[in-house]
Amino acid sequence: MIVDATESDSPLLEDIGSRSGVLNDDEMDALGAVWEEFLLLGPEDSGYEFLVDRVGDRVSGFVCYGPRDFTDGVFDLHYLVVDPDSRRQSVGRRLLRAAEAESREAGARMMVAETSTAARYAGIEDFFTKAGFQPEARIKDLYAAGEDMVVFVKRF
Amino acid sequence: MIVDATESDSPLLEDIGSRSGVLNDDEMDALGAVWEEFLLLGPEDSGYEFLVDRVGDRVSGFVCYGPRDFTDGVFDLHYLVVDPDSRRQSVGRRLLRAAEAESREAGARMMVAETSTAARYAGIEDFFTKAGFQPEARIKDLYAAGEDMVVFVKRF
Repeated sequence: MIVDATESDSPLLEDIGSRSGVLNDDEMDALGAVWEEFLLLGPEDSGYEFLVDRVGDRVSGFVCYGPRDFTDGVFDLHYLVVDPDSRRQSVGRRLLRAAEAESREAGARMMVAETSTAARYAGIEDFFTKAGFQPEARIKDLYAAGEDMVVFVKRF
Repeated sequence: MIVDATESDSPLLEDIGSRSGVLNDDEMDALGAVWEEFLLLGPEDSGYEFLVDRVGDRVSGFVCYGPRDFTDGVFDLHYLVVDPDSRRQSVGRRLLRAAEAESREAGARMMVAETSTAARYAGIEDFFTKAGFQPEARIKDLYAAGEDMVVFVKRF
């Protein structure tokens, strides 16, 4: 069941993030900072929303999204992370769908996901295009030589 | 002369920013937050550098830039603002050139400037392409309906 994340999810999110294999150390640090800001200020003032896929005590993935600064009606998909033990169960798809639905209710006209072509993100283009996103912009070598940024966009 | 900004420049930067006609209220707020962080933490820890074009007590423009999170050797050009009374004197060009030179010295292999197609930014494409930047990515309607984001990139 997809529900709002709560403070008690802190260790689960850190555990899933570090085991996911998609977040490097810098990204884990940034996730920690975003999570702290979310807990401290709440979704409205932090600008971050966290949803988890929870069954009983178990969390199989989480998504973080929120309005993009300086835009009118654009929401960023900041993180979408699935427990490696829960792959191939549509957890990512359901989390994304929930984030889209909540964003639309909050007035989003567009969702944006900045992704990398690094090997650890293999399959992400397929995932996003199946979900109705389009790769709309690309900056070659942005993250590092050989690691482009690809921006996926879905318009509602 | 282009030199590092100091705390005493606070009122000048706010004055130039508000009279520039290019920064809206949200962007002025964000500039204020960035400037506070720069003063509080210093360039290293804040990740922001500010340079001003100063003649005597007078400042005719400023530039803010710094390393982009999650990238290796990419610097963002965050702000480049010229006093409307000092236009057509190459202030912007000199500030940009100084920011590029300092970034290269700090290891930049690329500089990135996210800009808007809003009317108040008219002429920016001409300015950046003359400075050797290329429009490398565009997201339609990102800032608002009819206001695209255009990302200019210069590789060193």
